[in-house]
Amino acid sequence: MDVLESAERVVPVILCGGSGTRLWPISRERQPKALLAMAGAQTMLRQTLSRVADQSRFEAPLIVANEAHAGEIERQAEAAGIAIRSLILEPAGRNTAPAIALAALAASPEAVLLVLPSDHLIADPEALMRAVDTAAPLARDGWLVTFGMAAERPETGYGYIQRGEEIAPGAWRASRFVEKPDSAAAEAFCRSGDYDWNGGIFLFSAGALLEQLRQHAPDVLAAARSAIEAARADGVRLQPDRAAFESSPSVSIDYAVMEHADRIAVVPVSAGWSDLGSWDALYDVAERDESGVATIGNVIALDSRNSLIRGEGIFVAAIGIEDLVVVATPDAVLVMPRGDSQKVKDAVEALKRDRPELL
Amino acid sequence: MDVLESAERVVPVILCGGSGTRLWPISRERQPKALLAMAGAQTMLRQTLSRVADQSRFEAPLIVANEAHAGEIERQAEAAGIAIRSLILEPAGRNTAPAIALAALAASPEAVLLVLPSDHLIADPEALMRAVDTAAPLARDGWLVTFGMAAERPETGYGYIQRGEEIAPGAWRASRFVEKPDSAAAEAFCRSGDYDWNGGIFLFSAGALLEQLRQHAPDVLAAARSAIEAARADGVRLQPDRAAFESSPSVSIDYAVMEHADRIAVVPVSAGWSDLGSWDALYDVAERDESGVATIGNVIALDSRNSLIRGEGIFVAAIGIEDLVVVATPDAVLVMPRGDSQKVKDAVEALKRDRPELL
Repeated sequence: MDVLESAERVVPVILCGGSGTRLWPISRERQPKALLAMAGAQTMLRQTLSRVADQSRFEAPLIVANEAHAGEIERQAEAAGIAIRSLILEPAGRNTAPAIALAALAASPEAVLLVLPSDHLIADPEALMRAVDTAAPLARDGWLVTFGMAAERPETGYGYIQRGEEIAPGAWRASRFVEKPDSAAAEAFCRSGDYDWNGGIFLFSAGALLEQLRQHAPDVLAAARSAIEAARADGVRLQPDRAAFESSPSVSIDYAVMEHADRIAVVPVSAGWSDLGSWDALYDVAERDESGVATIGNVIALDSRNSLIRGEGIFVAAIGIEDLVVVATPDAVLVMPRGDSQKVKDAVEALKRDRPELL
Repeated sequence: MDVLESAERVVPVILCGGSGTRLWPISRERQPKALLAMAGAQTMLRQTLSRVADQSRFEAPLIVANEAHAGEIERQAEAAGIAIRSLILEPAGRNTAPAIALAALAASPEAVLLVLPSDHLIADPEALMRAVDTAAPLARDGWLVTFGMAAERPETGYGYIQRGEEIAPGAWRASRFVEKPDSAAAEAFCRSGDYDWNGGIFLFSAGALLEQLRQHAPDVLAAARSAIEAARADGVRLQPDRAAFESSPSVSIDYAVMEHADRIAVVPVSAGWSDLGSWDALYDVAERDESGVATIGNVIALDSRNSLIRGEGIFVAAIGIEDLVVVATPDAVLVMPRGDSQKVKDAVEALKRDRPELL
């Protein structure tokens, strides 16, 4: 790789700013799920880095992350044999629009950016690569491309994108974004065949994204620009100015740009995607035995059915259980019914008051 | 207390030889439930010792125990302010008849022995004391007295004793012993009003017990006698000869003597007794909230019902669970349905093969 950015190669932008507690007690504030092996032997970040390791296709990645995780991210990238181009350390969490704005400002305007969450599962990365190839000419033409993940079931926790007119082979104008529909709507979307899940994976040129931010979210752009202009560099680490960045509204790229801009394309892809956003999502992608039991780590499960049982650094014995999630770590254990795993947040709320050291 | 045994005072014999795994993962081979606080703040042994601390009524206790637990037993007795008269260390587990034989041989023949398991719950120890007062004249008259625990429900895991003719106020001849009846029989016993649970608590003179052993279990008596004659004393510790003791059959006092001897009396007592022999038994005696949830240790339970949730040295969060037993320790967690807790043995069997260090 040389100092000139290739017009052909894509610049990965990996968003690693999450502090997910939806997968407590495995994921913690200090160790969000991106930095952990949630599904498979590698951490989610390393799986994400390996998706963009092909130097014929990709530049070295930009990573936007919480500064508390900088050392761990560098260790994981080094272990993966990936050179980070820039590790942009957010002084505060402001959701995805400001994070992506930082990356776009740090890249050259003509660079084509592939924005990837660092903590999603993509079972078939080759399918995503083919979709990137489909999307790249559109991105170079100024479109903001979002990848539409095949909607496999009427999930109410996800966002949906409706396909409008076809604008190129395998690409459609995005005609509508719907965040977290009710179950009737989700079922209608799945039946229609016109809707995909919004997986939060995007391809666009830095310049096109910045122009759309200027039009639709100028305060986000202004804050990010001030933060980058006053940034301090330290090796690959780039520390945007705290006060400037903190002045940005906290807003997602969908809400700030995608739902408002004109030239938004959707390229559908069936890549075995999951956001791994809950223990139920992890159960869905886990390897299960003929009784529907997924065991991970140090576990024995006897006479049990349709359950996720995980022991990390501690042993779990489950006998005769059904439709449960059991997750154990050396200092905390979670037990709850399967299908209800958004309720982890209730436990997290209780812990914020009583036992914050466990978060 | 002087060297002469009081004719009036009773000699407690505390059986502490268990290695219960029915309450795994809290109870372990090295820390059986007698040595742990299973119900209440004190260990079961200390609760048992405190029942016989009244020196107007009791001599210093004899304790029969597994030699692996000698140090811990001495520490707990010292912490309770109880002087042990003799700590008889079984070289091997041979069930209750040989253990009681050792104690009877170590006492003087006219001593009246109150045999108490070390790991049972007695919510109303005063009721037991009144029953001991009722039973003492019978024991001095040569009867072997067993205390009949009020049968509160048709429990199939317990032994039952039928009351025959009344032989003294509050005392009946025991006409029948039934071990672990089926549920129809257990229900009939409860309905009849003639049956009590066999709690394994006995009162008899050492001489009377030894005479019955001579008649009904001479091999037990011979092995115990040889073991005591060749015993080594070390302070209060008495170590019976291993080879002699190991030659004894392994048999319960019920099977060896109670079910065969003539002069067996039963003194019913309603003392809030539980053998704490399973997590279900512990749930039954635990303090529960209005949703039927018993939490012990570091636990939060949200939207949960009719469950036992225990965290010892580790935190447990339960959300929306129902009819479960969840028990967590720093190295092992157990999750199973309530009402089925004898299945712990299935987990223990699996661990014997795969993870014996967790037992």
